[in-house]
This record gives sequence, C-alpha cells and structure tokens, in this order.
Amino acid sequence: MITVALPKGALLKDSIRRFQNVGLDFSAFLDSGNRQLQIDDPTHTAKALLVRAQDVPVYVEYGQAQLGIVGYDVLREKSSQVAHLADLKFGNCRMSVAVPATSPYRRPLEFPPHGRVASKFVRCARDYFRALDLPIEIIPLYGSVELGPITGMSDAIVDLVSTGRTLKENGLIEIDVLFHSTARLIAHPLSYRLNAGGLQGLIEQLEQDSKLTQPVA
Amino acid sequence: MITVALPKGALLKDSIRRFQNVGLDFSAFLDSGNRQLQIDDPTHTAKALLVRAQDVPVYVEYGQAQLGIVGYDVLREKSSQVAHLADLKFGNCRMSVAVPATSPYRRPLEFPPHGRVASKFVRCARDYFRALDLPIEIIPLYGSVELGPITGMSDAIVDLVSTGRTLKENGLIEIDVLFHSTARLIAHPLSYRLNAGGLQGLIEQLEQDSKLTQPVA
Repeated sequence: MITVALPKGALLKDSIRRFQNVGLDFSAFLDSGNRQLQIDDPTHTAKALLVRAQDVPVYVEYGQAQLGIVGYDVLREKSSQVAHLADLKFGNCRMSVAVPATSPYRRPLEFPPHGRVASKFVRCARDYFRALDLPIEIIPLYGSVELGPITGMSDAIVDLVSTGRTLKENGLIEIDVLFHSTARLIAHPLSYRLNAGGLQGLIEQLEQDSKLTQPVA
Repeated sequence: MITVALPKGALLKDSIRRFQNVGLDFSAFLDSGNRQLQIDDPTHTAKALLVRAQDVPVYVEYGQAQLGIVGYDVLREKSSQVAHLADLKFGNCRMSVAVPATSPYRRPLEFPPHGRVASKFVRCARDYFRALDLPIEIIPLYGSVELGPITGMSDAIVDLVSTGRTLKENGLIEIDVLFHSTARLIAHPLSYRLNAGGLQGLIEQLEQDSKLTQPVA
C-alpha cells in the first residue's frame, strides 16, 4: 500500500484535490473536527499522513511515505535525499528580501557589512548572501519575522511572500527575489526506482493531471 | 522604556498575569481579535512583544527586549546568551523519552545501536543519548512527533509532556525523564548589569510576586 505525506497549511486543500483527481480521497483531513494524522483512502488502496510542511521530506526520505507534496521553499531549505518529480504548479509564492519602506537600502548590495537579516529560512538566506559575497548575520526566527525590522533587531528579512499583505501591513517592501516556489511532488528514491506498489503509474497520473489542471496562459 | 518578550502559547496567560501583579498590563494580547505583536502598557512605562516561545531568547539576547519569559525547555534547546534570573514556577512539564506501549524497550539503555528517536528538541535529545554513550540517530521533526513511532520511522520520541494526554492517545508510554521544565524569567545581560530603565527593581518585584503566588506545599 502506498503512503503519501501531505502538508498541513496552505498547500493542503489543493494537494488533496490532486489526489482526488487520480482516484484517491483523503478529504477527511479537511473535516473541521478531524484529529487524525493518518487515514486510509476509502478504497483502502493508499494511506495518507498529515504532517507539518517541513516534515514531509523527512517522512519521504525515510521511506515512511513513498510520495509527498511540499513547497519548493521547504526543499531548498532542507535539501533532503528525495526524488524531485514534478512541479504541480499551485501554491505560487516567492522567497524575498524585504526592508522597511523607510530603510535607506534599496538593494541587498547596499546593506552594511555585518548587517542583520531575520529569517525562518536560515539556509536559503545564508546561501543567497554568500553568493553575493556579503558578510550578513542571519538571525534565525520561528515566526513573525516582520518583527525583526520593526523592533530594529534586523535591517531586513528573508521570507516567503504570496499576496504581500503581511509585508504591506508591516510597512515592508520587497527589494529582491531569491527564487519562486510552487508545490512539488517528491518520492522516496528507492521506492520510485523499484516501482513499489505501482508507484510509477500513480506518479504518471498525477503528472498528467497536473498538466490538465493548469491555467491557460 | 523596558520591553518584555512574551511567549505565544501555553505560557502566555500566566506570563501576562505575573506582569499584571507588578503593575504592567499586557492583557490586550489575550483579546481574541488581537493581531498586534507589539503593545504598550496603558501607563506607557513598558512595551511587550508577542513572539514564538523559541524566539523569546533571541529578542532578549539581541537586547530588543530587556526581559523575557520562556520555558526552561527552550533555554536548554537553544543555549542563548541571556541571564537566567528566576524560576517562575508555572508551566510545569517535563522532557521525556517515550516508546510505543508495544515496544520491547523499557529503558533507553535497551535501545538498539543506531536506533532512531524523533524529536523537536534535537539538541536536548542528542545531549541526553550522548551522555548515555548510546549511538542513537535523532530525526528532527517540527510537529506531531508521536507519528514517528506510529509510522515506524522511529523507535522512540523525546518530547515535552505536560498532562500526558497526547502520549496516551497515541499509545505511547514514558520511560525516562530528561529534565523538568517551568517558566523562567530571563534578561539581556548588559541591560541587567547597567540596570537600564530601572530593570532590577522590576525584576525584584517579579521575583517577590513569584514567591507569593506559589502554591503551599
């Protein structure tokens, strides 16, 4: 039986829809009263785990789930040993550098040496500033990164932006984009190579469905 | 003006009560409609930041808050450069090792070499097994650690336990306690030494209040 790891949060609804399109129903996770973290598809041909987005690659890397859906941002931050299969083209957002609207800096290259940047995405932020050869101090935070510049603890933030509403509400403006992110289909490499439980057929269906459900440009 | 960092979650209500007891009212954070992360006390003598528990020591270490309240578990996990001032004696919980009730292991020393332990508290778990001289692999997770043993990904978990309800619901039993945890008062070391904004007087009041509000043994 195939197990899939689904991410709590913003990507959950669309992730469940994609599996519904190929005949696997995990919509019980969307019931407001649901407390289960593990459910079977009603046909009992597949199982799903409901986990934090950051934990999806962990369950897939260890083979506890053969398939998973997770944002590219998480894959960049964690660099797990998983097979990257398909861009599912939903959950569009971007990893951006933002500064207070009142900041004198309009480009990262203008940041002062040893300037401070707060982020939940420590690795992404560090790699970015290293590539620019800027000696920036990254301050790791777990939430509400926008408080970094508001309190004066940091000059800027690196964070995931989708509508831009949080930035706007906090008087921050984007000055650069590290990368764009969308939901990705990932697999346990060995299960994929061995085609365990007919995994490859399911993946082809999901990829095919992904092409069909794309908005016309 | 003194700024205090308060932790979102389980410790918030009692933290706000302690500051109320010494004349500082940050209860606006408890309003269900509140979206603010930064408020002034009505007397405008102090300010409070509402942040994730793990971020409290960060704001205090960088001096953006001169005082903070946070669980000892977070201080153990992060080892920040902050002054540990007082045990506030609320928010009692313990960092425990738990295994499935069906597990053959009843003591950590029985764990197989290279056994796997899932935890959100990677450093605490690693230090504990290192002190026991056990070559255990720690699997870092962000949430729902109990899924580790349920899915078979790990032999055990290291997690914070308060009532034990989550463990029970997931068929897990505690087999050892790493340490007990309570809410702690922490301060920015330099602000504390310099008595910035009359910090030491406020701390004495909080410590005094903490002794008064303790349950009689």
